[in-house]
Amino acid sequence: MPKVEGRGKERKKRAEEKLVALGAEIIEDIARVVPPRLKIPSRSTSNIVYDEANRYFVLGPHYGVRSAASIKQVKKFAQTMCVADFCKELITSKKFATLREMYYTAEGWESGPFGDQGESDAILEDLEAAFGLKREDLGLTPEEDGAAVYGQLVIKEDDVTIDATKAGRAGYTIPPTIDDVEFVKCKAKRVIAVETMGMYHRLVQEEAWKKFDALIVGLKGQAARATRRFLKRAHDELGLPVYLNCDGDPFGFHIAMVIISGSAKLAYINHELAVPDAKYIGVTASDIVEYELPTDKLRELDIARLKQLQKDPRYNTEFWQGEIKKMLELGKKAEQQAFAKYGLAYVVNKYLPAKLEQVEGQKFLGAG
Amino acid sequence: MPKVEGRGKERKKRAEEKLVALGAEIIEDIARVVPPRLKIPSRSTSNIVYDEANRYFVLGPHYGVRSAASIKQVKKFAQTMCVADFCKELITSKKFATLREMYYTAEGWESGPFGDQGESDAILEDLEAAFGLKREDLGLTPEEDGAAVYGQLVIKEDDVTIDATKAGRAGYTIPPTIDDVEFVKCKAKRVIAVETMGMYHRLVQEEAWKKFDALIVGLKGQAARATRRFLKRAHDELGLPVYLNCDGDPFGFHIAMVIISGSAKLAYINHELAVPDAKYIGVTASDIVEYELPTDKLRELDIARLKQLQKDPRYNTEFWQGEIKKMLELGKKAEQQAFAKYGLAYVVNKYLPAKLEQVEGQKFLGAG
Repeated sequence: MPKVEGRGKERKKRAEEKLVALGAEIIEDIARVVPPRLKIPSRSTSNIVYDEANRYFVLGPHYGVRSAASIKQVKKFAQTMCVADFCKELITSKKFATLREMYYTAEGWESGPFGDQGESDAILEDLEAAFGLKREDLGLTPEEDGAAVYGQLVIKEDDVTIDATKAGRAGYTIPPTIDDVEFVKCKAKRVIAVETMGMYHRLVQEEAWKKFDALIVGLKGQAARATRRFLKRAHDELGLPVYLNCDGDPFGFHIAMVIISGSAKLAYINHELAVPDAKYIGVTASDIVEYELPTDKLRELDIARLKQLQKDPRYNTEFWQGEIKKMLELGKKAEQQAFAKYGLAYVVNKYLPAKLEQVEGQKFLGAG
Repeated sequence: MPKVEGRGKERKKRAEEKLVALGAEIIEDIARVVPPRLKIPSRSTSNIVYDEANRYFVLGPHYGVRSAASIKQVKKFAQTMCVADFCKELITSKKFATLREMYYTAEGWESGPFGDQGESDAILEDLEAAFGLKREDLGLTPEEDGAAVYGQLVIKEDDVTIDATKAGRAGYTIPPTIDDVEFVKCKAKRVIAVETMGMYHRLVQEEAWKKFDALIVGLKGQAARATRRFLKRAHDELGLPVYLNCDGDPFGFHIAMVIISGSAKLAYINHELAVPDAKYIGVTASDIVEYELPTDKLRELDIARLKQLQKDPRYNTEFWQGEIKKMLELGKKAEQQAFAKYGLAYVVNKYLPAKLEQVEGQKFLGAG
């Protein structure tokens, strides 16, 4: 899969070139009276493979052919052309649209309206997979904003410069168009991303961003695409280590793992999103014992999920296998906020310094 | 219910005074060898009444007594004291905690840990109802941040001044501690709050904030407490009319109505949250017909919900009764983003000017 480097404008330009080339090819075929065809990488489960070298899921070598000469495929072919044209228009007019807006816009297309949004989304994914480009580079954005960021980072959006210590307590919100954002200055030395906004506000309030020279990122549960892209850019462009602090349960583990190794569902675009060097510093089964944390009993769903994770190639390390096994034996889980048992500041004064020392080997004397 | 005016510090001071007075009373009782008792307004359904004059739900006159002399009530009495003490500590130390953190902190309290978070939340609600103060004034915050705001508003949080046109495309995020925020300057003349972040980003992109001199607020579905408080403050303190643009379905209607008239569940605190003068300018059954919008069929759930709304006192107006009836007759609903059928800018160039003209009687010539 060819990697596309660079920020917003360059990426858009690259996307535009690909769209124009696609159109030119089709016109050429038509001029030569050859039925135009598209090669689209297969996104079926059998073509999703874990790439041991890159440490994330990628698409395998299989692809399908969509031909304008096939009665069965011609409508989908036309729809693909219309989606590509819509993307081209968005890029040319420097606009963005949501997937939902595209679905509704299609009411007026020559290819006719889509049956439901699943159909229009799938065609966009075809283009993403074919080009190795994210939908955001094609002008389409998800509805949801990304995480909150607080710390010593200065960024630029269009003509606006924003200091992520001066955007308010709730922090700077990562927009869906994160690749348009320029990193101007960063004094932070690491990223600490936390699962819940409760923990985010705790860390901002206790000035963890200052104590640990860190960008504090509030994930709001499962990380949005924009958040994952932000974390990848912070790691790759700013050279910051990324640490993930989640609840000590299978869902917390997996929030971290999707950031680290990407999801199978987005195998076609994980090279743009995964942060394989990100490290888990969240609650573990060992922590539950060591810190005598308040716990909840594992539900059946938790147990089933933990057993799935045991077999997942992304969890095939000594650390994860050990912690999953231990959690199953304990039969218990614990949340990040459980450290409040020892006082509100404990997580910043004791727990995080201990965790950071484990991963970085240095003491954080400023804390506590 | 006594209204508490003023911003963060004054409110906190008022809350502290009430907590201190509560403690003094208890100590006095004990000194006089009288078993201390608390009067707590009843929050049961039978004590929730719709206040026609104020146009929101309030608590009726009934209350319960919690006595330290009753074996059945003494534990809860002790827990109430501990929660009050925790709140006092938060205010004194100028800290905030989440409800979840309080629940975990209680592991170390003399009254013993709570069985589940529902128990600790209920005791906090008792204090809110008894004092007529929001939990935020007592130092407790919900986990979730509020809405996104974009437009010509300058606010101050502690020492940080923030311009809501310069906080990024994703806007200024309303923090859970919104009462600590000072409105410094506002050039906007109205508030347009929209249900979805897709529509929020559309309005920001099409510069609706400039065209309509409006603060654009992205509600993210059902409005968070902080958002409702922000809208109320924008209306009461800045004198801005508040307009609500939601999906044309019973759930969209109710997102608007909870902002307008408050929820029954929060009857004890609606005087701090409801904006009875806010107006609905979202998608209606009439719009579905007039604009020939793409629709979905009403599901059984939608129909049942619409029939509930018909009987709800908050919907007892000609406008709502007419639109609900028409939607049931049509058997159809439509989303805000459905206007994309006519192009991405249609909602800003045509739809919103028409709606604003309806509610304000003036034309928006700048638009379109």
